[in-house]
Amino acid sequence: MKTLAPVPAVAASAPAEPFTLRPRRLGIDTHHEPVVVLRADSPVCRAEGFEAHARIEVLGVSRSIVATLNILTAGDLIGPDEVGLSESAWRRLDPAAGERLRFRHAQPSDSMSHVRGKIYGEHLSENQFDAIIGDIVAGRLSNVEIAAFLAACAGGRMSTAEVTSLTRAMVHTGSRMSWPHAVVVDKHCIGGLPGNRTTPIVVSIATALGLVMPKTSSRAITSPAGTADTVETMTRVDLGLDDMRRVVEAEGGCMVWGGAMNMSPADDLLIRVERTLDLDSEGQLVASVLSKKAAAGSTHVVIDIPTGPTAKVRSHAEAQSLLRALQLTGHAIGLQLHGLVTDGGQPVGRGVGPALEAHDVLAVLQNRAEAPADLRQRALLIAAAVVEIGGLAEGQAAHDMAHAALADGRAWRKFQAICQAQGGLCEPGVAAYRHPVEASRDGRVASIDNRLLARAAKLAGAPHAKTAGLWLGVHVGDRIGHGQPLFVLHAESRGELDYALDFVHRHPGIIHLES
Amino acid sequence: MKTLAPVPAVAASAPAEPFTLRPRRLGIDTHHEPVVVLRADSPVCRAEGFEAHARIEVLGVSRSIVATLNILTAGDLIGPDEVGLSESAWRRLDPAAGERLRFRHAQPSDSMSHVRGKIYGEHLSENQFDAIIGDIVAGRLSNVEIAAFLAACAGGRMSTAEVTSLTRAMVHTGSRMSWPHAVVVDKHCIGGLPGNRTTPIVVSIATALGLVMPKTSSRAITSPAGTADTVETMTRVDLGLDDMRRVVEAEGGCMVWGGAMNMSPADDLLIRVERTLDLDSEGQLVASVLSKKAAAGSTHVVIDIPTGPTAKVRSHAEAQSLLRALQLTGHAIGLQLHGLVTDGGQPVGRGVGPALEAHDVLAVLQNRAEAPADLRQRALLIAAAVVEIGGLAEGQAAHDMAHAALADGRAWRKFQAICQAQGGLCEPGVAAYRHPVEASRDGRVASIDNRLLARAAKLAGAPHAKTAGLWLGVHVGDRIGHGQPLFVLHAESRGELDYALDFVHRHPGIIHLES
Repeated sequence: MKTLAPVPAVAASAPAEPFTLRPRRLGIDTHHEPVVVLRADSPVCRAEGFEAHARIEVLGVSRSIVATLNILTAGDLIGPDEVGLSESAWRRLDPAAGERLRFRHAQPSDSMSHVRGKIYGEHLSENQFDAIIGDIVAGRLSNVEIAAFLAACAGGRMSTAEVTSLTRAMVHTGSRMSWPHAVVVDKHCIGGLPGNRTTPIVVSIATALGLVMPKTSSRAITSPAGTADTVETMTRVDLGLDDMRRVVEAEGGCMVWGGAMNMSPADDLLIRVERTLDLDSEGQLVASVLSKKAAAGSTHVVIDIPTGPTAKVRSHAEAQSLLRALQLTGHAIGLQLHGLVTDGGQPVGRGVGPALEAHDVLAVLQNRAEAPADLRQRALLIAAAVVEIGGLAEGQAAHDMAHAALADGRAWRKFQAICQAQGGLCEPGVAAYRHPVEASRDGRVASIDNRLLARAAKLAGAPHAKTAGLWLGVHVGDRIGHGQPLFVLHAESRGELDYALDFVHRHPGIIHLES
Repeated sequence: MKTLAPVPAVAASAPAEPFTLRPRRLGIDTHHEPVVVLRADSPVCRAEGFEAHARIEVLGVSRSIVATLNILTAGDLIGPDEVGLSESAWRRLDPAAGERLRFRHAQPSDSMSHVRGKIYGEHLSENQFDAIIGDIVAGRLSNVEIAAFLAACAGGRMSTAEVTSLTRAMVHTGSRMSWPHAVVVDKHCIGGLPGNRTTPIVVSIATALGLVMPKTSSRAITSPAGTADTVETMTRVDLGLDDMRRVVEAEGGCMVWGGAMNMSPADDLLIRVERTLDLDSEGQLVASVLSKKAAAGSTHVVIDIPTGPTAKVRSHAEAQSLLRALQLTGHAIGLQLHGLVTDGGQPVGRGVGPALEAHDVLAVLQNRAEAPADLRQRALLIAAAVVEIGGLAEGQAAHDMAHAALADGRAWRKFQAICQAQGGLCEPGVAAYRHPVEASRDGRVASIDNRLLARAAKLAGAPHAKTAGLWLGVHVGDRIGHGQPLFVLHAESRGELDYALDFVHRHPGIIHLES
């Protein structure tokens, strides 16, 4: 053998213990994706040849994680003997006092080879979706990897069989409820319409009529209020599985927050990355909706698809395509679906924001004169569909049953009983800071931009400030005079009120007036 | 209008100044993607409704950036009045002393709507690729967004017209050189083969024969050495454009680092995300290679495609497909290409690592007896192709010309002249720590795993430690006796030597022996 130079080789010492570092909690929330910070001059970094954004495996005594690496190249945020951990990295590793961590390059994951397969146009099996979704829930895929998965599956690139496999995989990775009833009804709204808070009314009517409707709802992700946020202004929603079961056994239904149940935990993670990409994939939407329904143990589900130019679904054709996809996959996983394509042209009711929407809900349930007719009508439409899919009646008879249960106070009494069972009924509050936004001229309301209106409500503090949001004074077609209020902003602090007002002044097109 | 309650509305104050925060440099390298850290309890976070991983716009007095948000939920890494900036955020904003920053939601970018179009199966125009690549280079797209772009373009989803548009867009966003010569030759190796350091030899031969070859090379990204790393152990490579031009005018060629030239700056950013995803997209590879060649002002390019089971290109079919794609796009942008599909079954030469490969290069140029025959032969093959594509001779005559220029010392003299012009020639060094890895039994070398061998060289410190790497004692087919050295690890520190040895002991299959 030819050697390079006549210098004698030195004997190496026995392979050293891999370098270890002391964990330091940084307090940085990087959401689901664990991030660790290493100093550029640390022996670990140099020896492994790590670089920024590498995926590395961090090994504790009893746990290990795969994390994204950030490198400290200046300053002394962490000491020479330390590794910084984001909150998710800290929670997953949960290091004991004095514990030291080891590091190595992350092994290529099987699930990413499936993602690459999908990128290259392969058809994925249920086992492959199980591997991908399992790794996403376990935090083993980074957001960059999840983004590649989503992009590969969007644009109609999933067959019905694949959407079904994805849906099943999302159910497999979380808790799954079962109920001792042949028919368990549910409803779901595709969303995008401020104030469309029909769920508490529909649950009250359906359960008053004897149907079983163990409703779990989500909190707002991008909207000013989710159903769970709204119901929370009137009763407890963070029930555990046992408490939920007790309420359903006693009252036939409930209105709780699904987040505590760990049903389809991948859904939230996928939605967050989809939102970053502003990607609306029909296949992902179908899997998202149906996995939650299947995990909740529903058997018969009514789907409300509000359709309009500033709603989530923008055209009738899009709504029909989504509905067909929902029904194909629903059928495959044993869910009976009934879809309703509804008008999504403008907000529903008066209130936008958790407590403000609760006031609308209560007005409808209590049959008060000022109850918004549009919310009442939509709730009855959906309740009738639930009655029908639940097998109690058909057509006009189903609508009459739903109408009667609302009109004669049974729904309101059932609502109160459910709230009592969940921990007591209380009044939604009213915000301390309110400011009207007035019409700058006489005119007729030509259109309302759902998205801008939702932004204004969020800037006023909704949903984190429960009583914040806005109270809508007009609907499309109403005539209004110069100086009359278009809507009233509600906020819990002056700063947030000012912030929302500033936005409103910069966006005069939120409510469009014509002569 | 119906109002909620009889409380009189309070008058809002005039819209407040948007909240501002004081920038704090965190020293964290998140590579190209700017990251900012806000406290969860900061008024900015609450007012805007920001959440982890949101994309937000950060506005200074004269500059603004789009950054990814991390949220501080515990501890006091940054103060209540501060915002933490990653290194790339700090560099791009470059805040003055006392400057305060403002924040708002990032506007949806046009380029991401094009990316979504591609995800949904649309054909993108050159203007759309320009917008995407421009935003990537300007740091306005996050890695998550770049990942979606790459996934949407991979798997054969780009037409030749699109690959051409992408290539042009990558050229447009950077510097572009031009030369006063009708024929400017170049060569490029697709890579994946340790030690395949033909470039300095080919440049020396081609320019000795009178061709113009202003060669720019990259540093290692995933390999133990890039051509720029190797040449840097012998002369300066970080020349500016003016110095490079002076060298080429004097000597007909150069061997410099392309990184300082800002040619096709998107390429590095795309490659880093592709690597995270372990995605090899033919279209991206074509655009990557050809954009750099076009930006360098080349007109005639020889492409070396080493093909083998552990090389980058694994089969002859894959090599042919890549070559065809390169030629189609090359033709469209006015580049003459000649492809060589070469044996990629094992490493080339003896040295793996910057200085170790330089020793091989020098041995070949100096016609030394111990010069590795395989490196010499490959360099001559490529040089002959360069001579031919450069129009000096054809077939055997081209090979004879190249051979003569190497054998009679013209290439070696030209190499020295180029190095002198670049700043002087120096000897590549030798590492202080060396340790042989010996055969555990008698046998014949059946195969060498390029990837594992490269990993071992990197763990020993290459390319950041210039003299680190390994010196290969055997090639495929060689017989070796028990206890004889398969290779010698070279390191600049005992820790790195131990680290590489540990890896080697855990991977006995790096060199596979058979009886």
